[in-house]
Order: sequence, then structure tokens, then C-alpha cells
Amino acid sequence: MTHAPRPLAKLVDDLPATVPFVAPEALERARGGEFQVRVGANESPFGPSPAAREAMAASIGRTGWYGDPDSHDLRHELAGRLGTTAAHMAVASGIDDLLGLVARAFLDPGDVAVTSLGAYPTFNYHVHGYGGRLHRVPYRDDRNDLPALVQAAKETGARLLYLANPDNPTGTWWPGADVERLLDALPDRCLLILDEAYADFAPEGTAPRIDPDDPRAVRVRTFSKAHGMAGARIGYAVASEPVVAAFDRVRLHFGVNRMAQAAALASLRDEAFIAWVVAEVARGRDEYTRLAAGLGLATLPSATNFVAIDCRTAEGSEAALAALGEEGVFVRRPQAPPLDRLIRVTVGDERERQAFAEAFTRVVTRLGLTQKVG
Amino acid sequence: MTHAPRPLAKLVDDLPATVPFVAPEALERARGGEFQVRVGANESPFGPSPAAREAMAASIGRTGWYGDPDSHDLRHELAGRLGTTAAHMAVASGIDDLLGLVARAFLDPGDVAVTSLGAYPTFNYHVHGYGGRLHRVPYRDDRNDLPALVQAAKETGARLLYLANPDNPTGTWWPGADVERLLDALPDRCLLILDEAYADFAPEGTAPRIDPDDPRAVRVRTFSKAHGMAGARIGYAVASEPVVAAFDRVRLHFGVNRMAQAAALASLRDEAFIAWVVAEVARGRDEYTRLAAGLGLATLPSATNFVAIDCRTAEGSEAALAALGEEGVFVRRPQAPPLDRLIRVTVGDERERQAFAEAFTRVVTRLGLTQKVG
Repeated sequence: MTHAPRPLAKLVDDLPATVPFVAPEALERARGGEFQVRVGANESPFGPSPAAREAMAASIGRTGWYGDPDSHDLRHELAGRLGTTAAHMAVASGIDDLLGLVARAFLDPGDVAVTSLGAYPTFNYHVHGYGGRLHRVPYRDDRNDLPALVQAAKETGARLLYLANPDNPTGTWWPGADVERLLDALPDRCLLILDEAYADFAPEGTAPRIDPDDPRAVRVRTFSKAHGMAGARIGYAVASEPVVAAFDRVRLHFGVNRMAQAAALASLRDEAFIAWVVAEVARGRDEYTRLAAGLGLATLPSATNFVAIDCRTAEGSEAALAALGEEGVFVRRPQAPPLDRLIRVTVGDERERQAFAEAFTRVVTRLGLTQKVG
Repeated sequence: MTHAPRPLAKLVDDLPATVPFVAPEALERARGGEFQVRVGANESPFGPSPAAREAMAASIGRTGWYGDPDSHDLRHELAGRLGTTAAHMAVASGIDDLLGLVARAFLDPGDVAVTSLGAYPTFNYHVHGYGGRLHRVPYRDDRNDLPALVQAAKETGARLLYLANPDNPTGTWWPGADVERLLDALPDRCLLILDEAYADFAPEGTAPRIDPDDPRAVRVRTFSKAHGMAGARIGYAVASEPVVAAFDRVRLHFGVNRMAQAAALASLRDEAFIAWVVAEVARGRDEYTRLAAGLGLATLPSATNFVAIDCRTAEGSEAALAALGEEGVFVRRPQAPPLDRLIRVTVGDERERQAFAEAFTRVVTRLGLTQKVG
């Protein structure tokens, strides 16, 4: 006897079967072997700090206990460092989780969220998931077009404006003062969701001065990048108290891994390690830039842990991505024009950078990408 | 200059500021000291298996990488053990996460979900969070009242029926055949969400036979209890393919901790450890039952890792909870009548069981709970 399927909620029933990212593991299963060089997901090859590793190891024996759903110690440590209170801090399973909370807390079905065309797909995924509509603003000169984003928010009556600064997938950034001007120009009902995943890598002055009590903005940060803990799933938001309280009404209270909490706290205090990672990443960016220049290819300036290499055409970058894959090198390529002429390469460790340089040189030569410089 | 708060989404704006559980850490901060005996959250004092510990330790160095969003290896291992396919398996950050997915995927605002009065509060939290309405059916003789639950689902046009078997917070259970009958009696549009968090501790025959292709049920299980990994946040659902696909449209794809994935896989294969935990928990339940009987107090039969002790009146259990807290012992007490006469005590390790026995004996004697037997 067969039984009738249960009807889905309308919002979910209407959604297409898409995923924000195809994971490297899925690509590996499709190609029938592991990548030799995994420099496509902006993960840290340097991993967690020695202090964070110790904290995780020390926590294993107590994995039987749930983590503190308030992340009390971590929120207080963060608040102290940021000169605010724990009531302004929300901890969740990475920025992805926080973007979901923002979409859920601020979008009614049919509401508009503004973002750049080709920006972080997981934000878009959550907007669709809660029935919101996306309005996408093209990049301008490979940077987020701040005036056009504000203009779009005004014209569409948007309730959310997403901005990553420094940006992903371009790596470009605006000085904090420009973000402050954007905030001042925002229409009254619109919230700025400022994604600062890459803030640790950015030059002084990139982080805007925003009062944690300012109800116009939520800024989100992560331990996935400079702190080398992407697999741990932990990030945080700085927001006004009512926004944090709104998250508390819907968030997964026991959602954050207990070892991740301990490791995040330890990692914050291991400042020398983070400084070392940031310096090493800067060195790696320079290597990639010189490598590309030596092959006659331009790169975008980057304040992140990756470099976007300009393959001139969508066909060129697509061919480069495929050829690198055949060489066992995992990189990503933005899909939306005009960014689709880029490939995005994460700064690996020395071995990975060397292996990437060799493979990329072969690929560029074989595909004749250099010759098109003329 | 002050700025206007951004309006919240209606669903979130309408929610009260409640949390599903006050955590032991929050209670400890309120009382100004750690509990000496943490037997209130049904956590495993035995922690993860040796194999799972090893897997976690071995994963620390690669915490820089995101986990596989498909949990491919774990889903295939689970599917093999359950005689089904990976397309019937969903992995998420514990049962809490899965209950949220079920509420989101199957409830439109205003829809009814049926549950027992006093059952798992996090299910209720998610139902409210997605705008659903709860219909609660009182326990009958300290067990879920299966015919009344079905009847309520019919009368209210419910789209979800929640059942924990074995049950929390009572510990009682129904044989699988009774759950199968409930499933057959469900109205056509209603989905059974079967919470089997405690299935590992239950007697043979407690798990109903449900075809994984059956669209009428989603069963959820966890590594938080017998597997001793509550802090890792990992659990899974067995459901028909369209339901798993619906979860895929809205779930947090990169939400599960990478170490948790590795540890869960290792733990599944460490069957001797799980068998030892289950035996040790059975021994602990017997100790609690004898302890209570010796004090003139009844206990409910339990197929879980905890025992509900009957303090006869709500006043009695409330006083016992408070007095145990003063002794540094953390237990929980159901809030809803008629369960509010119970305290719920998790099976601890030998030290904890001994410490609980001593503290509880003092408390019962001091409060005169024994004398009321007459």
C-alpha cells in the first residue's frame, strides 16, 4: 500500500533544488580522486592556532556535555575586545548560520534584499529560503558599487542590503569611511548586513566605525578564515541588543559545537599566531600576483586570503578552471559577469603555492591565455 | 543622532522572548558556582567512544577545512546499517536542528502540530518559530496517549504529530507495533515526526518497522546520548527521498562540524563501546530505582539514560529540585502537570551516582518526602 506524500510548506515547496556551493568533496567524488591542491574554498592551510588545537584536544573528553547555549565566555571575551557588551554579541555556527538568522528576522515573504551580482551565494540562498526577493547590482570595476547598492535599496524598498568588505569573490575592499557613508545613506527600513569574514586580512581603516547600538547594521565575522577553523563552524555577529534578542527567539540554542567554543576563545587570545597567518597570507598573495604578472595576466588587489586572477574572458577562466581540475588543483570561478573572467585562488601553504604555480603555468601556456595579451 | 530600529519580520516580531531550556551553565552562573553532579541534561558521563576520540584528535589539524556538506561517508555508513540508501538520510546539527527543518518544511503559518503536554520543548520552540500552532495532549498514566494524539491530529487537521519513543521526560515507551498502528491511523495530511534520541537504550522491538520510503514519517536519531557526543552536535533523520530533498533546499549546508562527522562515523563502528554504555546505563537505572524504592518513592519504568522519580506532588518535586541544587546536584523537573511531580535524573558515572544517592537521601529525609507515603 502506498501512502500520499505529506504536503510541504508553501515557501519550501516553491524553492528550487539548488545548493549554495558544490563542495570540493563532491567534485572529488565526481572526478574519482582527491585534489592534490585544495585552494578553492578560501580555507586556511595553516589550520587552527596551537592554543586552539590544545583547547580542542582538551575538550574531547567532555564532548558528552552540550556546549553552553549562551556561549557566555566567548561572547564576553569578544565584547571586551570590541569595547561593547555581551548583549551585543551573537554566536552561531559560522556566518552562514548568521546570514540565515538575519534573513529570517528581517524579511517577510516578498520583501527585497539587495546584494551585488555575483556576491556570496549563501546569502541569496537564505533570502530565497525565507521567501524574500533578490535585487542584484552589478559590480563596477570589480568592486561593490556602493552608490548603486544604496540607490537600489531606495528604489526597491529593500529591507536588507548585503555587503562583504573585504569582498568575496573579488578580494577588493572599500575604506571604512565609505561604508560609513553607505550606512548614512541607507533608507530607513533597510538593514545593512556587513560581512567581515576577511576583516583580519584587511589594511587598517577597512573596518567602519559603527556603534554596536546602531540599529542600522549587523556585522558578522568568523573563525573560519584567519583563525583557521572553518571545519569547527563558529562565527559571531555584532548588533544592537534588540537584534541579538530577536536572534535569540529563533536561533538553534544548542547548535554550536562545544570544542569550537573552547577553541574560538583560545584562538582570540593567540594573537601572535593570527598575526603570523596574516603575514604569511600577504606573502602568498604577492607570490600569486607575481606569478600571474609573469604569465602576462592581471590580478585584482586583495585584502583577503585569496587572489582573483583575470583570465580576460569567461571562456578563458572556464578553460583554466577545468584544466586546473585535471591537474588536481581545486580553485573556484565566479559565475556572474563581469566576474566570470576570473578564477579565485586561495593562498595555500608553501607546498600548495608551489604546486599551484607549476600547474597554473602549464595551464596558461597550454591554453594560450598569455598570447592574448598581444 | 539616533536611528530608527529596523522592523522585524512579522513571524519573529510576534514571538515571545523564551528559550527552550535554561542551560546548566546559566544555572551555575546564577548560583555562583559549578554543580558537583551534572545529571540533569541526559548527557553521557561516559563521553565519546575511544574510536570517536581518536577520530576527533586526528581531525584537529584539518579544522581549517570545511566539513563535507553532504556528510557523504556518514550517510552511506548509516544507510548501509539501516538497509536503505543515502538519499534517505539527512545529517544535521543534532535532533534540534532536524526538528527545526521538519517544522520549516511542513508547517505553513497557522498550521497545527500535535504533541504531548510536557514533551520536548525544542519541538514546540520550532513550531512557534515558524508560525505554527501547538495542540498539546496530556500524558496518560505517564505515557504518550497514542489514541488521543491521533484523535487530536484528526480533529485539528494537524500537519505534524511529534512523538518521542522512548519518551522524554518520562522515560516510558511503547512497543514498535503500537507506533506502527499510530502511523496507520494518522490522517492523510499529517506527518509523524518520531524522535528516537533514546532508541539505543530501548528493548528490542521498541523501534517500529517503517519503510524508509514511507512518506508518512520522519524518524530522527542522535549521537548525543548513547554515543556520548552531545557537545559535537550531530544527528540524522531517516525519511523518504522527497523529504530529504526538501531539507536540502533550506538546511545549513555547511553547518555540521568536521570533527563531529569523523567522530560519528568512528562511533558507529565502535559497537562494543556503545553496548558497554547501554549496559552501564541499565545498571545505573536499576541503582536509581532501588535508591528511590528504599526511600519510599516510586520511579517510572525507563528505556532511556535517565529515571523519573515520583515525588508525589508538584510541591514535593519542586522542593527536591531546589534542595538538590543547593547540594550542587543538577537535575531537571518537568513543568507540565501531571508530570510536574517528577524529577528527572540522568544516569551518571559511578561517582555521580554515588554522590546523587547521598544528596538525594539527605534531601528526601529533610523534606519529609518519605513520610507522605503513610
